[in-house]
Amino acid sequence: MNNFTFYNPVKILFGKGQISAIAKEIPADARVMMTYGGGSIKKNGVYEQVMAALQNHTVLEFGNIEPNPHYETLMQAVDIAKRQKIDFVLAVGGGSVIDGTKFIVAAMAYEGEDPWDLLAKHAPVQAAVPFGTVLTLPGTGSEMNASAVITRVATKEKFSFGSPHTFPKFSVLDPETTFTLPPRQISNGVVDAFTHVLEQYLTYPVNAPLQDRMAEAVLLTLREEGPKALLAPKNYDVMANIMWSAAMALNGVIRVGVPTDWATHYIGHELTALHGIDHARTLAVVLPALLRYKSGTKKEKLLQYGERVWGVSAGTEDERLEATLQATISFFESMDIKTKLTDYEVGEDTIKTIVGRLEERGMKNLGERADIQVTDVEKILEMSL
Amino acid sequence: MNNFTFYNPVKILFGKGQISAIAKEIPADARVMMTYGGGSIKKNGVYEQVMAALQNHTVLEFGNIEPNPHYETLMQAVDIAKRQKIDFVLAVGGGSVIDGTKFIVAAMAYEGEDPWDLLAKHAPVQAAVPFGTVLTLPGTGSEMNASAVITRVATKEKFSFGSPHTFPKFSVLDPETTFTLPPRQISNGVVDAFTHVLEQYLTYPVNAPLQDRMAEAVLLTLREEGPKALLAPKNYDVMANIMWSAAMALNGVIRVGVPTDWATHYIGHELTALHGIDHARTLAVVLPALLRYKSGTKKEKLLQYGERVWGVSAGTEDERLEATLQATISFFESMDIKTKLTDYEVGEDTIKTIVGRLEERGMKNLGERADIQVTDVEKILEMSL
Repeated sequence: MNNFTFYNPVKILFGKGQISAIAKEIPADARVMMTYGGGSIKKNGVYEQVMAALQNHTVLEFGNIEPNPHYETLMQAVDIAKRQKIDFVLAVGGGSVIDGTKFIVAAMAYEGEDPWDLLAKHAPVQAAVPFGTVLTLPGTGSEMNASAVITRVATKEKFSFGSPHTFPKFSVLDPETTFTLPPRQISNGVVDAFTHVLEQYLTYPVNAPLQDRMAEAVLLTLREEGPKALLAPKNYDVMANIMWSAAMALNGVIRVGVPTDWATHYIGHELTALHGIDHARTLAVVLPALLRYKSGTKKEKLLQYGERVWGVSAGTEDERLEATLQATISFFESMDIKTKLTDYEVGEDTIKTIVGRLEERGMKNLGERADIQVTDVEKILEMSL
Repeated sequence: MNNFTFYNPVKILFGKGQISAIAKEIPADARVMMTYGGGSIKKNGVYEQVMAALQNHTVLEFGNIEPNPHYETLMQAVDIAKRQKIDFVLAVGGGSVIDGTKFIVAAMAYEGEDPWDLLAKHAPVQAAVPFGTVLTLPGTGSEMNASAVITRVATKEKFSFGSPHTFPKFSVLDPETTFTLPPRQISNGVVDAFTHVLEQYLTYPVNAPLQDRMAEAVLLTLREEGPKALLAPKNYDVMANIMWSAAMALNGVIRVGVPTDWATHYIGHELTALHGIDHARTLAVVLPALLRYKSGTKKEKLLQYGERVWGVSAGTEDERLEATLQATISFFESMDIKTKLTDYEVGEDTIKTIVGRLEERGMKNLGERADIQVTDVEKILEMSL
């Protein structure tokens, strides 16, 4: 096991009715900015629950944060929040709203010249305005970690940042808030969470059997519950299990002491930035190709994953590796998510564009062993056509 | 899944060499009291490492905290610490030193008349002096939670308490600090951690498959690594896996949203209070009898536990239940821990004494369903003779 530091102070309020508890978690005299997305919270009752809970607070609203939240939009929120002397932000929505809010609270407290530096130059976050979240779309895990991914529309760039200052003070996870999600968002959430686990699990072994099994615990649960959610999206227990699995997938618990990869995410971000393909769908495209390309160096964990998660135990090593990849692809497809670039009408041209962008940006080598160069990215994308 | 709140802000510094990092975690101007036990840390190099790390801090020592830490001893530390204006406490040791330190820091800040009320009357902890830990003996999990168990010698009473104020600010888990542990303490630690998991896992099902599998992940790891540790106590990876398993067993992660039991612990505490039997050994005695006594209402999880942890899948339900209990007992015995009261020269007399004490105390019903009465405790203890 590798040395590690683990720290996660997010308070989780899980279960039906928990939105009413937020009033106690936000200072009574706080001036609150409530951030949200396209307005689905005004149709499913979440907005009313939040407003009822905050009836004794001063609340300002900032809506219309888009999927893959835009730097340009978020900077508008920063301006308003500073002018209105906001001292607590409440994100109500999915990963995009929460990620966007992390940037808002860090940018509000940023003392440098240009908050874009937090993303493009990894300028350190020295402080942030406190914030909480009410999650309505499980998947990204943003509700229980300190990281965020932000897109700049003008330059079609997508960067991540994070800091101990950008942990939510609390997050409400009420499975009932997910009952009106469209199937596409349930699919995305399950595949996103599943891939988060694989990024931290399908890496070279370091004798960390507990972390392996905890990762497998999340994978097995998503494997079982994901397809159920498409059939019965108002089944409380199913959505509760998915919601908690997605949080556990990226709250740091399964990552401690083991190498992580994240090349799939890095490559996937390019596809979203260029073509607006849903984040989870880019992962479902890139991951199988990357695993096949790297099946030599990832062999030990791939075989373990195949056996423990998919019951693949018969055949030669090569046969088992192939069966494991096929099981993963079938799972994504069973969640109604296509796994080929061409399914999204993306072709060779885009691969060339991405290669050019990565070269221009001076991309550092990717992956658990930092051995994936731009030429490897090109090959992986070609395998995913 | 049941509603839950999860909050665990303990910062974990895991791995070899991490003791040197504590200086950065303790305010530079803090007056530090270092608490420890019988002095093993002065023989195994841990004391020197801590002192080297704190060379620029003012450090006062308070040693000789005993196993099952005594209220009487701890109150001496409280007096000294208050007189010396201590504002940070560093616990260096195992669960007893850490538990004792939790009481010290809560009692230092207690504004009521008698700090014993924190234990006997569950007086709320309103504040505590901040503290950190350097763990040298994995097992209790105290390094990553807010609870403590304290014994009052004068009355032979053993009570627990806890509060969000009694989380350690940080805990160092360096597996190398365990290399000189006597086998008895390794055995105790593994069986203690294993039983912690069972108290939270062998309860009625609430459709929480992720929590089940995470509990099984800890059990399987302890099952594999525990016996290895007795054979190779200086194997870094083995001790690292045990150390992290013991922390994960009782940091709240596997407990969220599921019923817990803790009757075994409650009954076991009586045996320690009356006869000084090691905590883990009392659990190994009480648990098998309690599981047999409650095998009707615990059947579903017992069968799942048998199958997933011990590979018990053949036979009738009754045969599988018995095989599962026998596998558990064999595991404890393989860790050199006896599982019968008579192995510890305890007999009917003690059972009578315990029954009398529990009646006198007005014991509330125990267990996951709060249906274990004093007469049930008597039967369980008789089954464990």
